[in-house]
Amino acid sequence: MTASLKATCASADLPVLMNGLATQARSAARVLGLASTAQKDQALDAMARAIRAAAAAILNANAEDVADARAGGATSAFVDRLTLTQARIDAMADGVKVVRAIDDPVGKVTERWQRPNGMTIERVRVPLGVVAVIFESRPNVCADAGALCLKSGNAVILRGGSDSFRSCRAIHECLVQGLREAGLPEAAITLVPTRDRAAVGLLLSGLDGGIDVIVPRGGKSLVARVEAEARVPVFAHLEGVNHVYVDGAADLAMAKAIVLNAKMRRPGVCGAAETLLVDRAGAPNTLKPLVDMLIDAGCEVRGDAAVQAVDARVKPATDDDWDTEYEDAIIAARVVDGVGEAIDHIQRHGSHHTDAIVTDDSNTAARFLDEVDSAIVLHNASTQFADGGEFGFGAEIGIATGKFHARGPVGAEQLTSFKYRVHGTGQTRP
Amino acid sequence: MTASLKATCASADLPVLMNGLATQARSAARVLGLASTAQKDQALDAMARAIRAAAAAILNANAEDVADARAGGATSAFVDRLTLTQARIDAMADGVKVVRAIDDPVGKVTERWQRPNGMTIERVRVPLGVVAVIFESRPNVCADAGALCLKSGNAVILRGGSDSFRSCRAIHECLVQGLREAGLPEAAITLVPTRDRAAVGLLLSGLDGGIDVIVPRGGKSLVARVEAEARVPVFAHLEGVNHVYVDGAADLAMAKAIVLNAKMRRPGVCGAAETLLVDRAGAPNTLKPLVDMLIDAGCEVRGDAAVQAVDARVKPATDDDWDTEYEDAIIAARVVDGVGEAIDHIQRHGSHHTDAIVTDDSNTAARFLDEVDSAIVLHNASTQFADGGEFGFGAEIGIATGKFHARGPVGAEQLTSFKYRVHGTGQTRP
Repeated sequence: MTASLKATCASADLPVLMNGLATQARSAARVLGLASTAQKDQALDAMARAIRAAAAAILNANAEDVADARAGGATSAFVDRLTLTQARIDAMADGVKVVRAIDDPVGKVTERWQRPNGMTIERVRVPLGVVAVIFESRPNVCADAGALCLKSGNAVILRGGSDSFRSCRAIHECLVQGLREAGLPEAAITLVPTRDRAAVGLLLSGLDGGIDVIVPRGGKSLVARVEAEARVPVFAHLEGVNHVYVDGAADLAMAKAIVLNAKMRRPGVCGAAETLLVDRAGAPNTLKPLVDMLIDAGCEVRGDAAVQAVDARVKPATDDDWDTEYEDAIIAARVVDGVGEAIDHIQRHGSHHTDAIVTDDSNTAARFLDEVDSAIVLHNASTQFADGGEFGFGAEIGIATGKFHARGPVGAEQLTSFKYRVHGTGQTRP
Repeated sequence: MTASLKATCASADLPVLMNGLATQARSAARVLGLASTAQKDQALDAMARAIRAAAAAILNANAEDVADARAGGATSAFVDRLTLTQARIDAMADGVKVVRAIDDPVGKVTERWQRPNGMTIERVRVPLGVVAVIFESRPNVCADAGALCLKSGNAVILRGGSDSFRSCRAIHECLVQGLREAGLPEAAITLVPTRDRAAVGLLLSGLDGGIDVIVPRGGKSLVARVEAEARVPVFAHLEGVNHVYVDGAADLAMAKAIVLNAKMRRPGVCGAAETLLVDRAGAPNTLKPLVDMLIDAGCEVRGDAAVQAVDARVKPATDDDWDTEYEDAIIAARVVDGVGEAIDHIQRHGSHHTDAIVTDDSNTAARFLDEVDSAIVLHNASTQFADGGEFGFGAEIGIATGKFHARGPVGAEQLTSFKYRVHGTGQTRP
């Protein structure tokens, strides 16, 4: 820890510091909520430029973080998430430009109607206010979340993992420079200026109304803690135990392509499939080809008795397998009696994230899409499309599995609320 | 307390009872979420019929509740809220028919777009799940909330004030009869079958994921408790400290009509105005006529020095007056320096509920509507329009001042969430 950092930690009473940050963020949010699209885009342009210009400084700061993490015995996966390269910095700047290009949701009139008394009522999007983003080792979240909150007119308080502190500070300086160049308040994007872990608990408390929503970005233990302790709304998903159901009326070639992609394209993303459900009616034709394909592609298959019967390489599934998000090249597989049992299985074991059916029968597909209670339900497409970019949102701050406010990919639009504007000509209520 | 009632209370371990209710409600919610509009409307028709048919039984049950409340020393206002009459029972049945007539939000596709790879994405409304409604003395909330939750495909757990227990039970029987006639699960509308006050705390805990949202209906202390203790989202407003700002460019006749209506039409509703802000630029023409009109109409005016100066009957306002929801024929009034100071005053003292400007200047109006951070902002119309019925929603379960999910009047549409339905032809993600 550098001397200046120690000074920061020691100089302030933490609750006072955090409440002060929230108060400044609230003031900034008022300004941001009324800022023009042009002014916000000017800031985003300047941020992208500043990130590119500061690449060397960011890499230096990151190298110190990485050295400390290595010295502290961090795993190689952890170090990989923490490490920035020139390519990753370029991607960060590009990401800011992507956010610049998306539509500004603020001020958009989503509905408008007239009442019999002549009053016009408009429903218009407004920012949520102050977003807190709590993340772990990936420093790029600073830029991604900062840019998306800005575009949607929200102030944001960023709290990165203590291991990425120097990297985040270097990136945050670029964001602030962008705000400054556009004449927007610097507190619009705040980085918690201390590694003190108690800051997370204070953010979760909501800071006396200072925080409107919390977005955790990181592993399951972080999300679980945030969901358990937060006293304000949370946009998150704890896990993605996602299913692909291959119906008896499925086309085998399509089923193979979708199952392989859903599991193996990137087994570690939250939209990856974790369980394969195969209709008993089609199993004689589909089960062995699907299982062999997965195993040949390097995927471990853990099956029920019927699945084990088709290939000696299948391992037996235990009860736990049906509830497990492997985030790895492993899949649980079982045979079910039609779409009804598939839906029941998903209801019992799923996490309301993303589930897919492969079938040529449109009635069966309609039933699956209606009855499976997940944020995203797909017919004849891979679960790996569960992503704000793939949905056309341009960028996302995460994926939510709750049913409140945001569900599925959380983009700029989902970071807004609304108000009703009523235009009258002197109407009074009888 | 009757013998059967005692038996109910004593026979069950309360947490077990409440968790059981939530589990049954969750199962019912799954059925309701897929029920057709026709089936739900059939239930609503049957409920309205059953309420009319059971009027005598409801009145008898209510008479027992009222007698107990009187014997217990309840205030006359409390007894009035508790008391049912034939007219109030008719109004309850009519209310159910109003809900029957509104559009079914469930299954409505609100957006639909195609991705470059040919996939179609639809955003479609789905019910929230299980709603808990905690209310106080008005037994009609049973029917109102039960009907609206049913129409929006949600199961509801109703918890009335213990003083209205018999009345609620009699009404609830009619609702269940309607569900039964339509072949819908009886647990779709559950009345907590005990007066044990600890049931409220259990509902606020969320019953281990059994409750999706809580709607408190009642006085400020109930709402404050629910907002402080609930571990699940809440649709509510704590208070409505609403403002009418009369700009310098206002038409005096229009300003008088709106101010009088906003304050005096029904001073006790949450949309009533509590504070009058008058632009210094127009005050020489508008202030005295407005103040005299209010006082002559029986309204107490508590003013700052400038307001006191125009009429000797004005009482001095204290600091507390600017933050007070009188719910009575009292108004706080002050002179402000233009729309900017009006907005600042509302920002500092308002409750984000409903605020209005009276002006002929459309630029000033636009600024007020943009900058005032309230659920409903009106230009040249009375704040008393803050009501789901007046908005054209048909019915409302309450008004929310939070920014999450629902804001303003909470109608059937606001009681829904959404899912994404994706239709592909075999797409996989590159």
